[in-house]
Amino acid sequence: MLNSVEESPLHKITNARSIAFYGASNRPSTMGSIILASILTAGYKGELYPIHPKDESIKGLKSYRQVGDLPEVPDLVMMVLPTGVVCQSLEECGKKGIKRAVVVSGGFKEVGGDGIQLEKELLEIGKRYGIRIIGPNCLGIANPYNNLNSTPLTMEGDPGYIGLVSQSGSFVAQMFNYLYRLRLGFSTAFSVGNEVDVDMIDCMEYLAVCPHTKVIALYIEGVKRGRRFLEAAKRISKIKPIVALYVGGSEAGKKAAFSHTGSLSGPDQLYDGLMAQCGITRAYSLTELFDLSWALGALPKPNGNRVAIQTHSGGPGATAADSCSREGLVLPSLSDETRKKLMPFLPHTASAANPVDLTFTQNPKEYFSDIPGVLLKDETLDFLLIYILIPENSIRTQMVDAGMTEEQAEKSLGKMAEFVAKSFIEMQQNAGKPIIGFTYRSLQEKLVQGLMKQGIPIYQDPARAVRAMKAVVDYHQYKDQRATA
Amino acid sequence: MLNSVEESPLHKITNARSIAFYGASNRPSTMGSIILASILTAGYKGELYPIHPKDESIKGLKSYRQVGDLPEVPDLVMMVLPTGVVCQSLEECGKKGIKRAVVVSGGFKEVGGDGIQLEKELLEIGKRYGIRIIGPNCLGIANPYNNLNSTPLTMEGDPGYIGLVSQSGSFVAQMFNYLYRLRLGFSTAFSVGNEVDVDMIDCMEYLAVCPHTKVIALYIEGVKRGRRFLEAAKRISKIKPIVALYVGGSEAGKKAAFSHTGSLSGPDQLYDGLMAQCGITRAYSLTELFDLSWALGALPKPNGNRVAIQTHSGGPGATAADSCSREGLVLPSLSDETRKKLMPFLPHTASAANPVDLTFTQNPKEYFSDIPGVLLKDETLDFLLIYILIPENSIRTQMVDAGMTEEQAEKSLGKMAEFVAKSFIEMQQNAGKPIIGFTYRSLQEKLVQGLMKQGIPIYQDPARAVRAMKAVVDYHQYKDQRATA
Repeated sequence: MLNSVEESPLHKITNARSIAFYGASNRPSTMGSIILASILTAGYKGELYPIHPKDESIKGLKSYRQVGDLPEVPDLVMMVLPTGVVCQSLEECGKKGIKRAVVVSGGFKEVGGDGIQLEKELLEIGKRYGIRIIGPNCLGIANPYNNLNSTPLTMEGDPGYIGLVSQSGSFVAQMFNYLYRLRLGFSTAFSVGNEVDVDMIDCMEYLAVCPHTKVIALYIEGVKRGRRFLEAAKRISKIKPIVALYVGGSEAGKKAAFSHTGSLSGPDQLYDGLMAQCGITRAYSLTELFDLSWALGALPKPNGNRVAIQTHSGGPGATAADSCSREGLVLPSLSDETRKKLMPFLPHTASAANPVDLTFTQNPKEYFSDIPGVLLKDETLDFLLIYILIPENSIRTQMVDAGMTEEQAEKSLGKMAEFVAKSFIEMQQNAGKPIIGFTYRSLQEKLVQGLMKQGIPIYQDPARAVRAMKAVVDYHQYKDQRATA
Repeated sequence: MLNSVEESPLHKITNARSIAFYGASNRPSTMGSIILASILTAGYKGELYPIHPKDESIKGLKSYRQVGDLPEVPDLVMMVLPTGVVCQSLEECGKKGIKRAVVVSGGFKEVGGDGIQLEKELLEIGKRYGIRIIGPNCLGIANPYNNLNSTPLTMEGDPGYIGLVSQSGSFVAQMFNYLYRLRLGFSTAFSVGNEVDVDMIDCMEYLAVCPHTKVIALYIEGVKRGRRFLEAAKRISKIKPIVALYVGGSEAGKKAAFSHTGSLSGPDQLYDGLMAQCGITRAYSLTELFDLSWALGALPKPNGNRVAIQTHSGGPGATAADSCSREGLVLPSLSDETRKKLMPFLPHTASAANPVDLTFTQNPKEYFSDIPGVLLKDETLDFLLIYILIPENSIRTQMVDAGMTEEQAEKSLGKMAEFVAKSFIEMQQNAGKPIIGFTYRSLQEKLVQGLMKQGIPIYQDPARAVRAMKAVVDYHQYKDQRATA
């Protein structure tokens, strides 16, 4: 285990203060040019040195004929070159004294044949010059805290707390938008590609001590150093939760993984057991990978697995209750004291069982503050799972019908969203109990966005919310057992 | 089995040409007033007669003191009244000669105690006057083809092909927006509430012969007439697919269901087996209910379970392959002929295995027309599962950088979306093979919206897409077996 993130060999990659860049030109639509543009768009603050045999300047940056001409030894070199010239270029970088490389270029082990030999050669050059290599066949890194993004897509939203290590570059680049829509973000994301040198384990060890990272998400097609991977996971999961999507276990997943990054994968069930032993939470889809990471990164530790469901709609409440049962979460009956405290807020058609079902409510203060306040104080309850339905367009129409201007209605909705978000986060802090929401509406509506910005996870189906809650319960149970063992 | 939808006792409810309405007033925020507003907003074309003891006119409609004063016998009465006056009002409707009622009011069997007796009384009055009753404790019906919506939320989008029968009113009202975002819609949706008279089976039999309905979705908390339900399902599933979310099987689901609609539910595993025997596809979340309904309603019959996956990103491709393996769908190797035909479109880093992974593409015509065209012609393949990634904001930026105006870029994106949608629907028709897409981007982007509008299902995770494909394979296999049995 590293003592600090600065000790990691990756620190000067993710926090590189100067980068030599091969493969960009004044032709805008090549991958190299797109990635260079991406780095500029992200607002990278360090020095950028494009290397190009002919172009004098690229995107307003002074360009160099060869790496030997650079005025300094940059922290990092990035290569988006045709396969055939990668080795030779790395050799030149070695001669210049560069110690870190991200090789985006593909055409190595994953294509078989000559590619296998070429990848060996690449590693040998790296070893000879002491260069640590990420890749080849990768998209490198995204560190929003350093405005550094070596993927072709634009980073979106604020930096976050999910550290990702991915054997797929797509799942770094293409998740910026996905996470942004959930008001989540990466702390740092690594696309490790063929892992000729730097591998998943190195990245996990970095993220374990990265102060921005609250949860480590892994996309795995195949594990190279199986025993070391499991040992590392076991050490790290004592400190931070790890969630893994492993697709190399099924027959078709395995084949696809091989032609993707040339990695070999082991049988699914074996990994299932091994991962559980090491405290890794397994996800079975990408949606689940981030669903679970969200809750594991955001929520305070629950005392147990007892859930209160609050709803004003019977169907969503019953569906949430069903999901809890399926995942082994418990819905205790409410205590007499709690029921008594709830009474003033419940219409006669309501149910003061669990789920608490109001059947109808038009009082946001009662629904989003008074009632959850009562439920969170009940010592027999560990979680609050609450149904969020604010049909904003209907409310907007009602407000305008009642004489408000569109602008006033919008402002009023905004205020309500602020009130609810503030109320939730205060209640969660005061009670020390996790609050999770679910809705079938768009997550782009004001109220939901407000809650998500404050760190309350909102899922678009109770089944997803409950699966995430279960992961939180299990992780903390595992951690407690390890602590006392 | 009915011979036509007109034979159903529900036809004059869903297609009522005149409605007496109890419970609306000039106080805008009561449930009754909201529902009347909803009917008006939907553009209902028939006669509407509000009944109110005092108000002379409500929302511009002439109001009547009592139902006896109406100038005609309306097809239907809707009641959103306090529990205590429902029976008396129904009796008056009976005397007037009204034969159909939707009772929205709650406070009957689901609250226990006196409510149970009150519900019996309601049924007796119905029987005495020959009134068919939907409810109580329901939201009634949404028939977008008749601009009729008795739920408090506004219908959104176009009429669709999903017939819903729901023991939760929320799942009618609150799904308008959900389905609209997917470019789906109800043919007709029934919220059956406590089912004192009209029950789920009556509604299923209606939908079985409803010409707008391609698939029947059920939300079930508990089945009342178990044997008849299963017999009906068995008959109907020969004609139309049925998908059911049944939440009453788990312990907590059962309890929640009881306090919601007072229905009793049977053990989960028993229903699992019984439903499978009757050709019902079971869903385990609301998301899945509509995911499966979408594919079952939209896709042509596949010849088998052999899938071609097309992607330009390795991770999404491998994840999709993994999902196929888990669901028992097969990914055959591509034939030499198909591989040869694909060659002109593949860069050297690409994989002509299955998944076909382009690794990088900037040619929408090749990706969305040429390559799928080749794959759909391969006789060893039954489905095309294609990854859809068009990062619209990046493309827009690139277009503007290249000198286009914002407006031109928008138009150009729109044209591309149109081209792709047209190409897909033509290919699907010509090949007679289903095409399904998956993406991690927002479904609100132009390209995806275009495809969905044409009836191509696009899922936000390959796991969801594959689960839906499996349901389609299984349903047609079941149907074929029944046909030859």
